[in-house]
Amino acid sequence: MDFFPSALENLVDKFATLPGIGRKTAQRLAFFVLSLSDGAALSFADAIIEAKKNVCCCSVCLNLTDKELCAICASSRRDSGIICVVSDPKDVLAIERSHEYGGRYHVLHGVISPMNSVGPDDIKIKELVARVSDGGIEEVIMATNPDVEGETTARYVSRLLQPFEVRVTRLAYGIPVGSSLEFADDATLMRALEGRMEM
Amino acid sequence: MDFFPSALENLVDKFATLPGIGRKTAQRLAFFVLSLSDGAALSFADAIIEAKKNVCCCSVCLNLTDKELCAICASSRRDSGIICVVSDPKDVLAIERSHEYGGRYHVLHGVISPMNSVGPDDIKIKELVARVSDGGIEEVIMATNPDVEGETTARYVSRLLQPFEVRVTRLAYGIPVGSSLEFADDATLMRALEGRMEM
Repeated sequence: MDFFPSALENLVDKFATLPGIGRKTAQRLAFFVLSLSDGAALSFADAIIEAKKNVCCCSVCLNLTDKELCAICASSRRDSGIICVVSDPKDVLAIERSHEYGGRYHVLHGVISPMNSVGPDDIKIKELVARVSDGGIEEVIMATNPDVEGETTARYVSRLLQPFEVRVTRLAYGIPVGSSLEFADDATLMRALEGRMEM
Repeated sequence: MDFFPSALENLVDKFATLPGIGRKTAQRLAFFVLSLSDGAALSFADAIIEAKKNVCCCSVCLNLTDKELCAICASSRRDSGIICVVSDPKDVLAIERSHEYGGRYHVLHGVISPMNSVGPDDIKIKELVARVSDGGIEEVIMATNPDVEGETTARYVSRLLQPFEVRVTRLAYGIPVGSSLEFADDATLMRALEGRMEM
């Protein structure tokens, strides 16, 4: 990159720090930004600054918001007796897309992962326990990812919640809708059999 | 995206305008930017503004630079009698990587493409003709992409340069080094046969 101006190299470097963006893609993105009008490039830069400045965590559920309470916690139409626990704000979006869930959320902002030295105190478990101990919660649905770390986190949290009079459930495991049995892995098939239901 | 703050949605929208970045990837990138420290996010935004402000075109070859002349045009060690014509600044980088070329460049900033209503006057062909008509040029190497538009542009430019006493050449077509004949397409094999050389 010796032949390109340093400001351009710097922009390529920045893009290359983004997850899933390699050097070549970063170059393509940087060239694209240069081809934008001055106004469009400035508003791109502004969008980064504004998002970083305005977006914070909901004081109740820790989902991302630009207000004191997120839209879900502020809504009176959501059932405040059910909390769905997810590891990441993206997961809130995924569950909302199903249009099936009418309760509230709790975002842990991570999962317990000894490999990455993330312990229970590094994620927002205390805040969840405090919400449950305040009362008024009937059910906590653990909706962490179905991998080792998500499973560990779900088990850890459910054990912490045992002293409280609250039902702790876990999202069902099974074969994905629209998929083919032929391609389902052993662990998923085993879980699907274990969780079989009356027709 | 109803449940996310507007500043975050706006950032996702901006990332989604980048080439090759879909909605899901844009979301992932936006969440990553939010997870950066304030300083890192700010310096990302600054990199965009600085690149847009400082990077301009070399007054001779129209390659990207932050000075009046790009590093290649400013260098006395490059042969000023040979011009390699490329469609895009990225292509300069590709040719420089081969460490084989010691001349100068001319960046057209596009190719003739009637389908996208890009005519000869929309790209930097006039500037190339002016450079050649100023004299001192022995050879012009057309290095546009080996596709229909690149080929059309190369033929158009070479015809424009006929009145001048200058040799106009085209990059060789053929089978890529390290590839397999088995997977070479018909058109490439035909060109490789046409362009065969004495051993």
